[in-house]
Amino acid sequence: MFKNEKLIRLALEEDIGSGDVTTEALIDPDHAGTCDILAKESLVLAGLQVAQEVFTTLDPCMSFDTTFQDGDRVESGDKILTAGGKLQALLTGERTALNFLQRLSGIATLTRQYVDRVAGSNVRLTDTRKTIPGWRRLEKYAVKIGGAYNHRFGLYDGVLIKDNHIAAYGGITKAVARVRDSRPHLLRIEVEVSDMNQVKESLENGVDIIMLDNMDLKDIHKAVILVDGRAMVEVSGGVTLDTLPEVANTGVDVISIGALTHSARAVDISMRVVG
Amino acid sequence: MFKNEKLIRLALEEDIGSGDVTTEALIDPDHAGTCDILAKESLVLAGLQVAQEVFTTLDPCMSFDTTFQDGDRVESGDKILTAGGKLQALLTGERTALNFLQRLSGIATLTRQYVDRVAGSNVRLTDTRKTIPGWRRLEKYAVKIGGAYNHRFGLYDGVLIKDNHIAAYGGITKAVARVRDSRPHLLRIEVEVSDMNQVKESLENGVDIIMLDNMDLKDIHKAVILVDGRAMVEVSGGVTLDTLPEVANTGVDVISIGALTHSARAVDISMRVVG
Amino acid sequence: MFKNEKLIRLALEEDIGSGDVTTEALIDPDHAGTCDILAKESLVLAGLQVAQEVFTTLDPCMSFDTTFQDGDRVESGDKILTAGGKLQALLTGERTALNFLQRLSGIATLTRQYVDRVAGSNVRLTDTRKTIPGWRRLEKYAVKIGGAYNHRFGLYDGVLIKDNHIAAYGGITKAVARVRDSRPHLLRIEVEVSDMNQVKESLENGVDIIMLDNMDLKDIHKAVILVDGRAMVEVSGGVTLDTLPEVANTGVDVISIGALTHSARAVDISMRVVG
Amino acid sequence: MFKNEKLIRLALEEDIGSGDVTTEALIDPDHAGTCDILAKESLVLAGLQVAQEVFTTLDPCMSFDTTFQDGDRVESGDKILTAGGKLQALLTGERTALNFLQRLSGIATLTRQYVDRVAGSNVRLTDTRKTIPGWRRLEKYAVKIGGAYNHRFGLYDGVLIKDNHIAAYGGITKAVARVRDSRPHLLRIEVEVSDMNQVKESLENGVDIIMLDNMDLKDIHKAVILVDGRAMVEVSGGVTLDTLPEVANTGVDVISIGALTHSARAVDISMRVVG
Amino acid sequence: MFKNEKLIRLALEEDIGSGDVTTEALIDPDHAGTCDILAKESLVLAGLQVAQEVFTTLDPCMSFDTTFQDGDRVESGDKILTAGGKLQALLTGERTALNFLQRLSGIATLTRQYVDRVAGSNVRLTDTRKTIPGWRRLEKYAVKIGGAYNHRFGLYDGVLIKDNHIAAYGGITKAVARVRDSRPHLLRIEVEVSDMNQVKESLENGVDIIMLDNMDLKDIHKAVILVDGRAMVEVSGGVTLDTLPEVANTGVDVISIGALTHSARAVDISMRVVG
Amino acid sequence: MFKNEKLIRLALEEDIGSGDVTTEALIDPDHAGTCDILAKESLVLAGLQVAQEVFTTLDPCMSFDTTFQDGDRVESGDKILTAGGKLQALLTGERTALNFLQRLSGIATLTRQYVDRVAGSNVRLTDTRKTIPGWRRLEKYAVKIGGAYNHRFGLYDGVLIKDNHIAAYGGITKAVARVRDSRPHLLRIEVEVSDMNQVKESLENGVDIIMLDNMDLKDIHKAVILVDGRAMVEVSGGVTLDTLPEVANTGVDVISIGALTHSARAVDISMRVVG
Repeated sequence: MFKNEKLIRLALEEDIGSGDVTTEALIDPDHAGTCDILAKESLVLAGLQVAQEVFTTLDPCMSFDTTFQDGDRVESGDKILTAGGKLQALLTGERTALNFLQRLSGIATLTRQYVDRVAGSNVRLTDTRKTIPGWRRLEKYAVKIGGAYNHRFGLYDGVLIKDNHIAAYGGITKAVARVRDSRPHLLRIEVEVSDMNQVKESLENGVDIIMLDNMDLKDIHKAVILVDGRAMVEVSGGVTLDTLPEVANTGVDVISIGALTHSARAVDISMRVVG
Repeated sequence: MFKNEKLIRLALEEDIGSGDVTTEALIDPDHAGTCDILAKESLVLAGLQVAQEVFTTLDPCMSFDTTFQDGDRVESGDKILTAGGKLQALLTGERTALNFLQRLSGIATLTRQYVDRVAGSNVRLTDTRKTIPGWRRLEKYAVKIGGAYNHRFGLYDGVLIKDNHIAAYGGITKAVARVRDSRPHLLRIEVEVSDMNQVKESLENGVDIIMLDNMDLKDIHKAVILVDGRAMVEVSGGVTLDTLPEVANTGVDVISIGALTHSARAVDISMRVVG
Repeated sequence: MFKNEKLIRLALEEDIGSGDVTTEALIDPDHAGTCDILAKESLVLAGLQVAQEVFTTLDPCMSFDTTFQDGDRVESGDKILTAGGKLQALLTGERTALNFLQRLSGIATLTRQYVDRVAGSNVRLTDTRKTIPGWRRLEKYAVKIGGAYNHRFGLYDGVLIKDNHIAAYGGITKAVARVRDSRPHLLRIEVEVSDMNQVKESLENGVDIIMLDNMDLKDIHKAVILVDGRAMVEVSGGVTLDTLPEVANTGVDVISIGALTHSARAVDISMRVVG
Repeated sequence: MFKNEKLIRLALEEDIGSGDVTTEALIDPDHAGTCDILAKESLVLAGLQVAQEVFTTLDPCMSFDTTFQDGDRVESGDKILTAGGKLQALLTGERTALNFLQRLSGIATLTRQYVDRVAGSNVRLTDTRKTIPGWRRLEKYAVKIGGAYNHRFGLYDGVLIKDNHIAAYGGITKAVARVRDSRPHLLRIEVEVSDMNQVKESLENGVDIIMLDNMDLKDIHKAVILVDGRAMVEVSGGVTLDTLPEVANTGVDVISIGALTHSARAVDISMRVVG
Repeated sequence: MFKNEKLIRLALEEDIGSGDVTTEALIDPDHAGTCDILAKESLVLAGLQVAQEVFTTLDPCMSFDTTFQDGDRVESGDKILTAGGKLQALLTGERTALNFLQRLSGIATLTRQYVDRVAGSNVRLTDTRKTIPGWRRLEKYAVKIGGAYNHRFGLYDGVLIKDNHIAAYGGITKAVARVRDSRPHLLRIEVEVSDMNQVKESLENGVDIIMLDNMDLKDIHKAVILVDGRAMVEVSGGVTLDTLPEVANTGVDVISIGALTHSARAVDISMRVVG
Repeated sequence: MFKNEKLIRLALEEDIGSGDVTTEALIDPDHAGTCDILAKESLVLAGLQVAQEVFTTLDPCMSFDTTFQDGDRVESGDKILTAGGKLQALLTGERTALNFLQRLSGIATLTRQYVDRVAGSNVRLTDTRKTIPGWRRLEKYAVKIGGAYNHRFGLYDGVLIKDNHIAAYGGITKAVARVRDSRPHLLRIEVEVSDMNQVKESLENGVDIIMLDNMDLKDIHKAVILVDGRAMVEVSGGVTLDTLPEVANTGVDVISIGALTHSARAVDISMRVVG
């Protein structure tokens, strides 16, 4: 898919540079080989297609075989993917393919943990824009694979009036009126608030979503009761795996969690030549 | 600096897309402003220049003021950077600038923890190639800022003969001879080994560095004694903050730690409009 | 601004290619000059900044002077912009700068005509995605300068369920439910309908906007009455300058007009060396 | 063809952005489909290949069927092209493919109208450089498909000495001598003139083509008689469909018409899923 | 100038890659320095501006001083350029800047040798398209600086009908007629011929330039007499410094010499830190 | 291979520009053809794959046939490659494909001459960084094909402390210590020296390679004896085909020769349509 091409090439260029001195010295360019990509821990798989595109960039005739798809739970020792093609391409592409798989599966795995904590609830868990620069689309894809939802992708697909905007423009009422007139009519308006007065002012201005920024549980409760379904309520800031269930129980509609991307670690995946 | 320009533009394009609907609606293009970037936890700073370049891309006349530099320990609440320029540029660039700073400082902070564990030792801690695709150079910069060293940057600036190479080419002795002849003479040769026989075979072939792959402490000790300074000894695989000191005490020369990059989380940094 | 840079360079490269054989032969590289850019017909100005960026790309020290800004009505003979700098840069950049100005002002001028027809009304006129490939952002900017509004910028910043989607997914009810669950929560949902039954079905599913596709005036009236404020009503298809007022009078909320971009002609603007 | 690739990708990127939220939600990635692209008015077809490349970029296995080729007259209701492949690719690529087809066919259709007015004449109708920035090559292709000729493509493939050059360099005689010496010898020299004295001076200097800029019919006649075949005569400026025949009848060799590109509107073409 | 930017960045990226390990280790980033660029042999200077742009890319505040300009004869030991700025930028950019200067001055120097051989003659010496891929514009610039002329820059700015075209299309007469009709009217037509019959056929078809391909002196003489000014005559193929004067004496108009670019060696230029 | 793609496209774009006016006028787009690429002099072949990629970029279905591979000695008249595909693609790609082949084979041919002079010796001949900007990787490939070795590819894959570094940092001893600590441990350290004292100081600091810069034979001899195998000895500067054997006889390990790339001329290769 052309959408990942730019990042894949950037990645291969930075790893291969002027050449893979070890592989080029030892492996004949026409030598064929087969490799298994293996999970070294329990994980939620994400990035199968990107990993394949890495190898295909180096050898357009590479073939692949797998019993899994993105979103599957994979256990330690499971064979995630078998790739067959030029051995040079397999060895040279190994680290880059794994780096993609490990990061994306890491995000999906962490996301699944959060999602499992609110199983049965109606709350919508979402990511944020706290993503690795250059990786926004891929990371949000992994979040979705993990079972959560996407918040806006950028500054362009949703209005979010934050404290700095409110201060600079002179209050919620004025700011909402101004944005409502100018924004494309398919975009909803969300306002970030920090106290109950701002919740009220937002409600009176008919905003679509009210984001409670770093409020405590008691205030979240109050806000949900006050809003009473006239707007969506989103909680943002400081929610952890431990506090997630009780926040979800307040009846808020959305909980956005930066940690899904900014604190995900790479899961352990490796490659082994098998033929 | 032109080296970061490509990634910065990619990042701004993915965040701004067709436009910052909120900021463009509320803030006058000519409106000036000042913002503070603040640490929300204790961290080792990395990425000051990249963050500034993000803002400068949006407003070439942006000015900056700071009392810190990359590598400094910064405490929660400290003012990392003050930026003055067009308020639109500040608000539109905020998330991208913070995403760079948070990731790079996260790596530097984690690295510093590892480095502090071996203070006073002669061992060299290094990163690996387990980095975010597209971020190799930046992440290795952050590792250095954190006080550790860089391993090779890619497949091009060092020979590393791994198990798959050895298997495919028919043994260490043959592989080393082949690579020694073909590689540019400024590159050293490292061989990844998994048992004492391979350590011996590597030594006999005069390799420069022997990488002990996932060996236990006892074998590491044996290897160091066997090698006895005739090659550098590198330990790789599974070293944690807890096990690091005893591995370092074995007298190995290098310990490479993938976690410095693949498990670093973003540290908490925020921006506040102050004028 | 870095956002226009790619298109401006593409444009200069395609016009200059291996060199401006005429200007390079006749004009000394160090020769300075001044040019006036003049309106040759009455128009609404759009693109002043892009035109300046064209010249600045060729001579970073170019200076500009003008009494107008984008959105101003300019009459035939008016001096739109005076540019001073290297004469080579002025002559080589002339056609490209004018091509940008003429297209963007052409769109703004046509848009203003439509907008003037519904002066005093509450209806929102919008553009569509029928824009010149590569020019989406710039053309939508010109529409806004002309006084109308932007519809969604692309396939990413709004849900629009069209007839083909409805057919492929098995009806409006099913499709709306599916999209409602998956879409980022800041995006509204619009459904394209072609008869009154579909209007009803859309209403029952609580969609945000109902787009009446190529309906006649009588049906538009009926739909407005049926909807009665429970959703926004958008008219799309075949609205001309002549029919616009009566469509607006039906009380619909939005009228989207492809012609604003797909039928705009370039307005007449020229450049004259004055010193 | 690699020549259109850059613009096609730019176009798809600006339309798809972070994703087609509607289609991705409703259509299964493996779902196949067939679409007809239909003319909604009488037109001269141009851009078939580019439209196909749009779809192929999204689905490399897309197949196409058509009974037409570029340059054919197509009537309202005619099936221009049938495309079969992934339904997601068809729906996501629809608008971009149509935008290319509608613009290019619009230019070809308008051009054909001009060409038909001088059927039987020896005059050569050409385009100008008044094209959409980024689209120079494609628009000139459409002009040729419409039956007219191309003037120079840029500042590099022909010498055209305009009034500003003449003024800056001190007259036609000096300028022609200077350019004649420096220009690559495969390029002809054209001079833009505004009165009969300049026609004479150009002739005396042996220029290849004399461009009569915005002269009236009487002067064009005089110029043709004066030149008497010793140079080509080109008329430029203000020629319309109505005045074209009488200008052609003066016996000039070339008439260049900016309107072919700068005033072409998109013709009406749509897509329908048929299976 | 934006025209050289792409190649300069490509060059710096391939030389610097992940970093200048030597300079970054030894030189403080804030350390200032001054360097002289010195001729180590007699040469004709070309590329001063590109060399400066290399340094400016690494340090935008670099300043330069020189008493020479492109086209000047420079003797061994002469100071070509003094550059002052960050010492890191000077040392890191040295090789790239010199590589540009040495190649371009090498072409200019060789060209000057050829030009000097026909001093006083009216013949026009030109380059060919036998240039280093990616360097077409720069190398043709150096040829001009050396005192010769440019032939067409590419396949787009001149018609050149070669033997393969003639064979494929069925003869000169047919081919010339076909091209004359289709080519933009500012492009001349040149035909490559290999015997006197083809010279005659070309003449009868009124071509603008006749290229005598690898003909001997006697035939060149005959062709010049036969053509007698009714077309330009170009000699191409196998002309050396030694044979050039007698070829020029035949009275041909143009001699094109691939060696100017394809056989130029780099001249010797070096850099010395002086402060 | 994606590694050459950028340069190949750059090359085709600069040669084709707005179109191949001759070939497009004369050759039908569907016309198939076959061409032979022929050696016009004795040469060592390099660049077969790049040449094929040029044609494949223009016609993805192009097929190739050859009895040679890179590194083969080819005699004048030999058929290097037969290519079959669209005749337009063959004629339009001809010059670009040949320019790649001629330059790379030129380097390989010259390199082979040098290598043959030291046949039987253990000395390693290497290239330098004096390559055409943008061509570093390709030129070093051709050097290897010619039988010599590669020196470092850039500033990143080897430490080379030159006179300017030594001066700026305060002597060899200090500089070596500083670099030894900071450089990635897979990189060796080379020092450029100009007299026997610097040889001694380098030895005492345990550098890996000592580069004797422009020393005479007598001093080279002395240095080899002094070093006595404790470091590699490299000779650089001013070695010619004539002086090479006696330099090699001194027993140095490496001789680096800029001329392999900076003074290689293009060898003569041409293309003929054969069907």
